Amino acid sequence: MELYIEKDELINGLNHVQGIVEKRSTNPILSNVLIVAKDDGITLTATNTEVTYIGELSSNVISAGSITVDGHHLFQIARSMPDSTIHMKLGNQSRVEITSGSAWFKMLGRPAEDYPPVTHFTEGNTIVLKSRDLKHMVDQCSFSIASEDNRYGINGSHLEVVEETGQPMLRMVATDGHRLSYAGSQFSGDFLMPKRMLIPRKAMSELRKLCDASDTDVKISFSESGALVTLPKSRFFFRLIDGEFPEYRKVVPSNNNKVITISKDLISGALKRVGLLASNQARPVRFSFEGNSLTISTNNIDIGESKEEISIESTGGDITLGFNARYFLDVLSVIKSENINIELGESVAAAVIKSPGDNDGLFVIMPMRID
Amino acid sequence: MELYIEKDELINGLNHVQGIVEKRSTNPILSNVLIVAKDDGITLTATNTEVTYIGELSSNVISAGSITVDGHHLFQIARSMPDSTIHMKLGNQSRVEITSGSAWFKMLGRPAEDYPPVTHFTEGNTIVLKSRDLKHMVDQCSFSIASEDNRYGINGSHLEVVEETGQPMLRMVATDGHRLSYAGSQFSGDFLMPKRMLIPRKAMSELRKLCDASDTDVKISFSESGALVTLPKSRFFFRLIDGEFPEYRKVVPSNNNKVITISKDLISGALKRVGLLASNQARPVRFSFEGNSLTISTNNIDIGESKEEISIESTGGDITLGFNARYFLDVLSVIKSENINIELGESVAAAVIKSPGDNDGLFVIMPMRID
Repeated sequence: MELYIEKDELINGLNHVQGIVEKRSTNPILSNVLIVAKDDGITLTATNTEVTYIGELSSNVISAGSITVDGHHLFQIARSMPDSTIHMKLGNQSRVEITSGSAWFKMLGRPAEDYPPVTHFTEGNTIVLKSRDLKHMVDQCSFSIASEDNRYGINGSHLEVVEETGQPMLRMVATDGHRLSYAGSQFSGDFLMPKRMLIPRKAMSELRKLCDASDTDVKISFSESGALVTLPKSRFFFRLIDGEFPEYRKVVPSNNNKVITISKDLISGALKRVGLLASNQARPVRFSFEGNSLTISTNNIDIGESKEEISIESTGGDITLGFNARYFLDVLSVIKSENINIELGESVAAAVIKSPGDNDGLFVIMPMRID
Repeated sequence: MELYIEKDELINGLNHVQGIVEKRSTNPILSNVLIVAKDDGITLTATNTEVTYIGELSSNVISAGSITVDGHHLFQIARSMPDSTIHMKLGNQSRVEITSGSAWFKMLGRPAEDYPPVTHFTEGNTIVLKSRDLKHMVDQCSFSIASEDNRYGINGSHLEVVEETGQPMLRMVATDGHRLSYAGSQFSGDFLMPKRMLIPRKAMSELRKLCDASDTDVKISFSESGALVTLPKSRFFFRLIDGEFPEYRKVVPSNNNKVITISKDLISGALKRVGLLASNQARPVRFSFEGNSLTISTNNIDIGESKEEISIESTGGDITLGFNARYFLDVLSVIKSENINIELGESVAAAVIKSPGDNDGLFVIMPMRID
């Protein structure tokens, strides 16, 4: 195996897999990436057995071959190289010579045969959507996924097709029991994700990275226990989580009759300030809606109190509720519109937050008891 | 107490003391800063009993008074404020109202009387130097200070006056037993630092911050066990460490007869790359000086090997030595000249590194055994 590759091309490829290659694993070869050089370029494979990435990189291949080397070290070496082109050559005993300008490295690799075989994937039902739409769904749902909850069914995001607004839309949903997000996307093809299956958190962040790198079509195919995501120069395979997602529609209040419109920047600024004194995140921030004003306040017996009033448009009468400030700020950080709508019901009902332009997505935040 | 203060002025003042106020202390008032408002402005005091900072801030004082409040929270609050002016007013029971634009905070303070009294300092021998020269000395010496070594005499930096180059120069020296730095500065006044006294590491980083903020004269006065540093709008007091600094001149080789001149950027780039495989910092990097070339190399049985050749100007013959790459990189990071000179003796002699333009400072790095 011998090849020349542009430094930036190699760095981009390796950047995708830094979250996948294991730093310390009981199976040391999982720290390695598999490099397979063919006449038309190289493929770079990384797996932690749950998640597998296969990228195609442009390369001037002098002679074909394959090898595995440590993925973190190769990334560090590639980034440090002085020249824009990197030369790689496989020598005896799985040693790979890597040179660029005056720099010379010889890495101890392991043969490609030692690398775990990539799971055979039968492409079943397949959908196609825009990478920017997938990114939108991932952004809106990622923060609502539960963290290692013992209710397995909420440790990932759920995907389904809804026809609420006329045409079939793909919907991603996530909840941790205290809040819920869903977001929609147009798609084409036949959607049939296996029942009781969820997209794991780790796959969500890898999806985000892949979508960030290119504005293109993304193909997702589902098998019985996994999904294959195909972009023009990369494929990404992950196991689905076996767990029953809750009946999330029951959690979304349907008769919240108070509708409040607020400037996103105003409420975001006020919440960041007032939230400074709610250092303990379990401590609620008080939201008092009165006429055309919202007063956000908190009271921390150790530090002090804080309050801020902002003007709102409101229908439906006054109410006071407590919320976790961070949950609100997470939602505000992904909404792109100038204003947000908050829909409220009685004081025990969850709040529904919507971006006025987005009819396919919403956020639900459960209220907290305040004294 | 009531006052108006510019947001940036308050942030700058509080920024200086974030490294001093304690986050968790057995004496909770050490988390607070003392604010004393007089007709002509306010003073901000922070102390951890080892190090004390007193800053003068411009402020429109409506009524004089004093209070202490949590320094970290006040900093966070000040930074988050929506308006460029902040209003502070002391109310009942040590509560301080802080407002800016729509934001309202009430912090629970404690009375100024509860704050530890600032050590009375009798200004003794006093020297004056430029803040940029003090910064230069601090930068060159900080990384060479030992970290909590049981030899107390090297846990700080030593200050003395030398007359080696004709006129008296101030010299700062630090060593951790493996390397040594010294740097010089012009000064005026009478220097008489108490014997067996060292500037602690924490004071060095605070000095660096103070010098960074202004290009001005700095006055340093020494008492029996402490030093007072005075800048136009701030005073900084710290206790000196009681410990005997070693006879550092014995460590500086005087008859290193091989002189090598190298481009700083070339050796720095090569060392960063080659050092990637010396992941264990105790592992030496091999320096082979041969004619007009230096080959830097390392061999890590777990990962692989690396080497890089750079051209040098050399007098005095060939030699091969081992060094800790990080020690070299620390030195290279503070040298500003285009080239560096390395002076070498026999293979067991320490290397002396100099910046060609700087006759008052140098660095010493002990060699390491290589196989």
